[in-house]
Amino acid sequence: MTRFSSFAQTLKASDIAALLALTEQPEVISFAGGLPAPELFPIEEMKKVDEAIYNEEGRKAVQYGTTEGYVPLREEICRRMKDKFFVDCKPDDVVVTTGSQQALFILSQILVDKDQMILMESPSYMGAIMAFNPVGPKYTEVPTDDKGIVPEELEKILAADDTIRMIYVIPEFQNPTGITWPVERRRAFMDIINKYDVIVLEDDPYGEIRYDIEKLPSLKSMDTQNKVVFLGSFSKIFMPGLRLGWIVANPEIIDKFVKFKQAVDLGTSTFGQRQAAYYCRMYDMEAHIQKITALYAKRRDLMYQSMETYFPEGITFTYPQGGLFTWVTLPEQLDATELMPKCLAKNVAYVPGNIFYPNGGHRNHFRLNYSNMPEERIVEGIKRLGDVLKEALAK
Amino acid sequence: MTRFSSFAQTLKASDIAALLALTEQPEVISFAGGLPAPELFPIEEMKKVDEAIYNEEGRKAVQYGTTEGYVPLREEICRRMKDKFFVDCKPDDVVVTTGSQQALFILSQILVDKDQMILMESPSYMGAIMAFNPVGPKYTEVPTDDKGIVPEELEKILAADDTIRMIYVIPEFQNPTGITWPVERRRAFMDIINKYDVIVLEDDPYGEIRYDIEKLPSLKSMDTQNKVVFLGSFSKIFMPGLRLGWIVANPEIIDKFVKFKQAVDLGTSTFGQRQAAYYCRMYDMEAHIQKITALYAKRRDLMYQSMETYFPEGITFTYPQGGLFTWVTLPEQLDATELMPKCLAKNVAYVPGNIFYPNGGHRNHFRLNYSNMPEERIVEGIKRLGDVLKEALAK
Repeated sequence: MTRFSSFAQTLKASDIAALLALTEQPEVISFAGGLPAPELFPIEEMKKVDEAIYNEEGRKAVQYGTTEGYVPLREEICRRMKDKFFVDCKPDDVVVTTGSQQALFILSQILVDKDQMILMESPSYMGAIMAFNPVGPKYTEVPTDDKGIVPEELEKILAADDTIRMIYVIPEFQNPTGITWPVERRRAFMDIINKYDVIVLEDDPYGEIRYDIEKLPSLKSMDTQNKVVFLGSFSKIFMPGLRLGWIVANPEIIDKFVKFKQAVDLGTSTFGQRQAAYYCRMYDMEAHIQKITALYAKRRDLMYQSMETYFPEGITFTYPQGGLFTWVTLPEQLDATELMPKCLAKNVAYVPGNIFYPNGGHRNHFRLNYSNMPEERIVEGIKRLGDVLKEALAK
Repeated sequence: MTRFSSFAQTLKASDIAALLALTEQPEVISFAGGLPAPELFPIEEMKKVDEAIYNEEGRKAVQYGTTEGYVPLREEICRRMKDKFFVDCKPDDVVVTTGSQQALFILSQILVDKDQMILMESPSYMGAIMAFNPVGPKYTEVPTDDKGIVPEELEKILAADDTIRMIYVIPEFQNPTGITWPVERRRAFMDIINKYDVIVLEDDPYGEIRYDIEKLPSLKSMDTQNKVVFLGSFSKIFMPGLRLGWIVANPEIIDKFVKFKQAVDLGTSTFGQRQAAYYCRMYDMEAHIQKITALYAKRRDLMYQSMETYFPEGITFTYPQGGLFTWVTLPEQLDATELMPKCLAKNVAYVPGNIFYPNGGHRNHFRLNYSNMPEERIVEGIKRLGDVLKEALAK
């Protein structure tokens, strides 16, 4: 028997992990994942990208690099921050991360101590909860409506507890709900934030995957006090296997972040960073994102229409204007985790909603992903889910 | 002012970091780094490797992968563990890591609690100290002679303190000393370990870079109680920029490690993992390692001869039989950190030895790296160092 640290002892096999493992069998139509559609990965282009990297930079491209990241990629990120998120920043404000996941992990490590409070939307991204847990924080879920965090509720919570260090939010096409905060809501949020001594993590991996909504200003673009850390990702617009994300933050946070990242992995793959930078230089990233957006919009529509057709009365679901997910709310008496075996018996799957709540509960929800599913399987899968739901409601 | 976690508050700019930054100026002959020689990176081969990955696996190669790692790479690692380190293992015993640095970080997180004791060789790798520090451990330096850890001293320490959880060692071509533990020393070490409830981290990034010494059995190969975690790396035998390492460990540790790694970065680059696996399949890794070894052996010899020629009496240095480093011991009255500005004035640099001691002190040592330095600069750099040392001793 190996003795483990106190935190490691809490890392146990979970029932939900066992259920989710079952969703990966090939016969299952699984809406449980969060994968981008691989058919759009620019493989032919990447052959030329890699060749150009080896020809132009050769050995430097695979030697140790700096912890902050490859400067031309950070320059490209600054251009994208300006064009896409209305944020003015310079390469020194940017650190390239080994995926957004690493940014979530490190930020919680440098900002929060054990037993301190982290605020999150209710519900919020389960991967962030997983990233924050090693710190041993407490979580307060800020009540959230169909426009995002409710400002009055946020203010009540902040006013009552001055130990709160960090607020984690996903204002665009939220995971899991698909909800986007309107501009007024963003302004109201920042007005409150500016009154308190807290840091905001603005996680925006889906912001460029938008269907029928204009670009909205990011929280970071409204951040007059340098309290917002913006988290970006190449996983959804490019290729997740390269593990490339970034943060934009104030100089103090950048300094601590870099020192901590050095302890964690020294730096992100120097070759992978060049793959993203060279692709942006050699090809039209915007055209690529438009292709992704067009495909996902079609799938979003098809999933929505199928739910309208096949889901019984009394079940509601969001109409995401971007991103990868929709969120289904069942009548209170139904438990999405309990329904999972019935779904799996029909070879269809989702993620039960309760795991998106850091303090548990809320068992009458589930999350559906539509980005990585051929159209005919979307219709068939939703039909099967509808059958399970009808049967459950008939009881 | 951003408020930081207790640990992040300890991450301050250090004098030594400022000194080391100066060593990176191009006019400096810097023996301070630990970089492999880039002229041997197999760039032409990598063009074919990448093309093969895209042609054979296409989109799968850049999609999200498992946290444990790409199975064919873990299979290749098992073959290498058998051939090079005499360890029988199967892919389930292996996790691919984002460099060895990540393995050090995660292992300390899952095995050690705040204020618990970690044992290390005295001196030991500064990157490991950096990786372990976030846990907030205490360190005991185990006395070490020219054959590695002194078994009797280790036993005394273990017998006196039953809260010790983890022992970190580098038995082959140690960083910073270049020392290799003989087989008898390894056996004696394992005999003691087997009497206590501790986990051993056996870090072996240099084990395949051996000049004039036979392969020796790894501690892991002698590990009858599954208490040793072996840490391997592709950084020194292949290319460090890809950030690829691995661990071999018992199933309990693998389980916790994977759960923790998921929180840290979800998984290591799926493309990078294939770059290593395909290279091993398509090319002769052993022939490549022989090229590296031949070059480094020449540089090691040249550095050793130059030190014999140019260093004054009273200064000793190790003759490493593999790896990248040699370790210089000055008379007690000299302080290697204080001599750094004098060296930099002559455009030559090393790493002062005290930073390799987790509890500080030991200021009369420095580490020299010879792997990444053209031959003529080795001679010239050692000559300049000799001048500084002669002057210092003459006072």
